Amino acid sequence: MTVSRTICLGFLALITAGTLLLLLPIATADGQWNSPLIALFTATSAVCVTGLIIVDTGSYFSPSGQAIILLLIQVGGLGYMTATTFLLLLLGRKLGLRDRLALQQSMDQSELAGGRRLVLSIILMTLILELTGVFLLMPLFSPDFDAAHSLWLAVFHSISAFNNAGFSLFADSLIGYAQSPWMTLVISALIILGGIGYQVIMEAMLWLRDRIQRRRSLRIFSLHFKIVTSTTIILLGLGTIALLSTEFNNPATLGLANLPDKLIMAWFQSVTTRTAGFNSIDIGQMENTSLFIIIALMFVGASPGSTGGGIKTTTLRILLACTRTVLQGKEEVLCFQRQIPSSRVLKAIGVVMGSGLTVIGTTTLISITDPEFNFIAILFESVSAFATVGLSAGITADLTIWAQLAIIATMYVGRVGVLLFMATILGDSSPSVIHYPEEDLLVG
Amino acid sequence: MTVSRTICLGFLALITAGTLLLLLPIATADGQWNSPLIALFTATSAVCVTGLIIVDTGSYFSPSGQAIILLLIQVGGLGYMTATTFLLLLLGRKLGLRDRLALQQSMDQSELAGGRRLVLSIILMTLILELTGVFLLMPLFSPDFDAAHSLWLAVFHSISAFNNAGFSLFADSLIGYAQSPWMTLVISALIILGGIGYQVIMEAMLWLRDRIQRRRSLRIFSLHFKIVTSTTIILLGLGTIALLSTEFNNPATLGLANLPDKLIMAWFQSVTTRTAGFNSIDIGQMENTSLFIIIALMFVGASPGSTGGGIKTTTLRILLACTRTVLQGKEEVLCFQRQIPSSRVLKAIGVVMGSGLTVIGTTTLISITDPEFNFIAILFESVSAFATVGLSAGITADLTIWAQLAIIATMYVGRVGVLLFMATILGDSSPSVIHYPEEDLLVG
Ligand SMILES: [K+]
Ligand SMILES: [K+]
Repeated sequence: MTVSRTICLGFLALITAGTLLLLLPIATADGQWNSPLIALFTATSAVCVTGLIIVDTGSYFSPSGQAIILLLIQVGGLGYMTATTFLLLLLGRKLGLRDRLALQQSMDQSELAGGRRLVLSIILMTLILELTGVFLLMPLFSPDFDAAHSLWLAVFHSISAFNNAGFSLFADSLIGYAQSPWMTLVISALIILGGIGYQVIMEAMLWLRDRIQRRRSLRIFSLHFKIVTSTTIILLGLGTIALLSTEFNNPATLGLANLPDKLIMAWFQSVTTRTAGFNSIDIGQMENTSLFIIIALMFVGASPGSTGGGIKTTTLRILLACTRTVLQGKEEVLCFQRQIPSSRVLKAIGVVMGSGLTVIGTTTLISITDPEFNFIAILFESVSAFATVGLSAGITADLTIWAQLAIIATMYVGRVGVLLFMATILGDSSPSVIHYPEEDLLVG
Repeated sequence: MTVSRTICLGFLALITAGTLLLLLPIATADGQWNSPLIALFTATSAVCVTGLIIVDTGSYFSPSGQAIILLLIQVGGLGYMTATTFLLLLLGRKLGLRDRLALQQSMDQSELAGGRRLVLSIILMTLILELTGVFLLMPLFSPDFDAAHSLWLAVFHSISAFNNAGFSLFADSLIGYAQSPWMTLVISALIILGGIGYQVIMEAMLWLRDRIQRRRSLRIFSLHFKIVTSTTIILLGLGTIALLSTEFNNPATLGLANLPDKLIMAWFQSVTTRTAGFNSIDIGQMENTSLFIIIALMFVGASPGSTGGGIKTTTLRILLACTRTVLQGKEEVLCFQRQIPSSRVLKAIGVVMGSGLTVIGTTTLISITDPEFNFIAILFESVSAFATVGLSAGITADLTIWAQLAIIATMYVGRVGVLLFMATILGDSSPSVIHYPEEDLLVG
C-alpha cells in the first residue's frame, strides 16, 4: 500500500469511527441517538480540524460527546502533522550536501534515519505546547466558571487552537472574549505555532538553545524556514491592516470599539483566518470586501507540516517567485538566493489547479442545490471547508442535505490534500521511458 | 524603446485620440459636447475591444460617433492581433528544426523574415472575413430596416463580432435575434475566427488548400494549432452544456423557449462569453450558478494572436498539463507528445498570478467604493473588464466614478496584457550572471 493510500484510508477510518461514536446516546446532551448526518458532519469536521458545525458544540453534545470531538481533533491533527513532516523529511534525504546541513542541524541525525523518535518528538512538542496553553487559559475562564468547568474550557480551547480546529464550546465562538488581550495573545500563539509546522518550531528552538548557551552559532536556517516565517509574518500583517481598514467604521464589528480594541480584534481575525477558524467578530455582519479578503487568506492557509490547511504559504511564495522571474525575463526561480527545483514549481501549479477546481466545483454544486443563498456566502463556506478553516458566513447549518454532504466531501479532500487524493484515486502510473521533443508556443 | 513599451504607449495614444474624438459634438446624438468620463470610458472600451458601456451606443452616439467607435475597434483589434502575432513569430525563430518546419509550412518563408507582408496578410484576412460577415448579415437586418440602415447595422456588427468587441447598436445587444439560427451561425463564426488567432486560421487555410488541390500533404500542424483548436472546441462544448443545464428551467432566460431554441441560445452564450461579449440572453436574469460559470469562462478567454482577451486557452492547457504531470509523478510537461519548455510554464504561472491579482484588486476596490451592489455582480464586471469581454451583470452604468475609473484601468491592463504591462512599469533588468544553488522545500 502506498503512503498516499494509507493517508486517505486512515482519515476515512477515523471519520467512520468518529461518526459511530458520535451516534451514541452518551454523546448528545439530551441522551437520544444522534442523527447520522449530524454525527457524520461533526466527526468529519473534527477529524479534518475544520470547525464548521451544523449544531452548537457546547449545548448539543454532552461532555462525553465533547470529549470524543476533542479526541478526534487531537488524533486528526497529530496524524496529519506527523504524516506531512515525514514527507518533508523524505524529501530532505534527496537534498544536496549544503542543504542537508541545514536540515540535519535542525534535527538530530538519528531522527532523519528512524521515524519513531520523530513521532515521539512531535507528540511531545504538541503535548508541551497544549499543556502550556491550558495553564495560560485557566485564568481567562476562572472568573466566570467553577474550577472544573474552567479547566475543561481551557483544555478544549487549547487543543482546538493548537490543532487549528476552530471548535469552541461557546455558541458565539470567542466573540465574548473579543476585547481580552490575554485571550488574543494565548490563542494567537497556539494557532500560529500549530500552523507553522513542526520543522520550523524545531529549527527556531535549536537556534534559541544556541543563543542561550552562547554557543558560537554556525546554524544555517533552511529555505523552508525562511520562506514559511517570512510569508507568515507578511500575511499576518497584511491581513490585520486590510481587515482593520475595511471594518474600521462598521458598527456591527469594529466600529464601536476603541482603537486598541480594534487593533486586537483585527489582528485576531487575521491570525484565525489562516486556518484556525475561531472568530471574535461576527462574520455574518462583515462588509463584502472583508469577506472577500478573508476568502483569499483562507485559500492560502497555513504552512506545510502543520495542522493547518489551504494551498500553503510555500506554494504561494513559489508562484510569486515564478512571476518575478518571468517579469525579470530570467529562467531561474529564486527565493532567498536559492533556486527552486522545477519539480516543486510543477507541484505548486498542481496544488493551486486542484484546489481551484475543488473550490469551483463545491461552489457550483451548492449554488445549484441552494440557490437562495447569497453567492459570496456560498463561496465563503466552500473555501472555508476546503482550507479546513471553519469560519462561516452563517449558512452551513441551513444548507440542504446535498450541500452539507458536498461540504463534508470538500473538508475531507481539503484535509488529505487535493493532489494526494487525486493521485490515490487515479492510481500510480509507471514512469514513462519515452522522451518527447520540445515545442514552444505562445502563452497569455 | 522596447516592444512592450511601444505596445503600452500605442494603446494609450489610441485611447487618448479616441477620447478627444468622442468628446466632440458631432459624436453625440444630441449634438452637445460629450461628458469626459463617458468619452474616456467608451474610447477605452472600444480600443480595448471590451464592449462594456455606460451609455447606449445606438441612441446616445450619432452615426459619426458610432463610426468613430467602429474605427477605434478596428484599429485596436488589428493592432493587438498584429502585435501578438509578431511575438508568436519572434518566438518561432527560436524553435528547433522540426518545429520550425510546422511553422514555415503554415506561412511562407518570406513572412518569417519580413514583417511587412505579415501585416498586409493580417489586414487582408481581416477585411475578407469582415466583408463576408457584412454580406451574410445583410439579409438578417433588411426585413426590418431600410437598405442604408441595414448595411450600417451589418457593417457595425460584423466588425464588432470579428474583433470580439461586443459593441452593439441595439440597446438589448442581440436579444432581439436570440432565436435566429442565421444570426447565431454568422456571428458565432465571426467571433470564433476572430478569437482563434491569425496563425491558426492560416494553418487551417493552407491545409484546406492542399486538400482541394489534392496535393499529397506532408503538412504537420503546429503544437500551437493543436492546443488552440482542441481547447476551443472543448470549452465551447462544456460552456454550452453547462449553461443549458443551469438555465434550462429559468423562465427569464431559456425556460420558455423550445429545445432547439434553448440549444441555439446556450451555444451562442457559450461562444460569446470567451471573449466577444454580445448577449442574446438577459445576463441580469441568470442564475448565480450561470454567472459563476460565465466568470470562469471569461477568465480563460480566447487564444493568443487573436482579438480576444483573458488568460488564453494555451495558458489553461499548459497548467492542466502540469497538473497531470504532477499526478503521474513525472517531470516532463507533455502536450500532444511534445514537451512544453519550462520558460513557457513559468510564463503561464506569471499570467495567471498577474491576472488573478488584477481581478482581486479591481473587485476589492469596487466592493469598497460601491458596497451596495451584489458581490457576484461586482466580480462579474471586474472579470469582464479584465478579459475584455464586455458582458455585464447590469451594474457598470450605475457604478460611482471611482469604480468606473477602476474598470477603465482594468480594461487597459487586460488588453495590453498584465505581464507586458508590469514588465513595462518595472523596466528591463539586466540578466543576472550569478547562479544560486538549488534547495528543495515542501509544497501544498
Ligand atoms: K480550522
Ligand atoms: K469583448
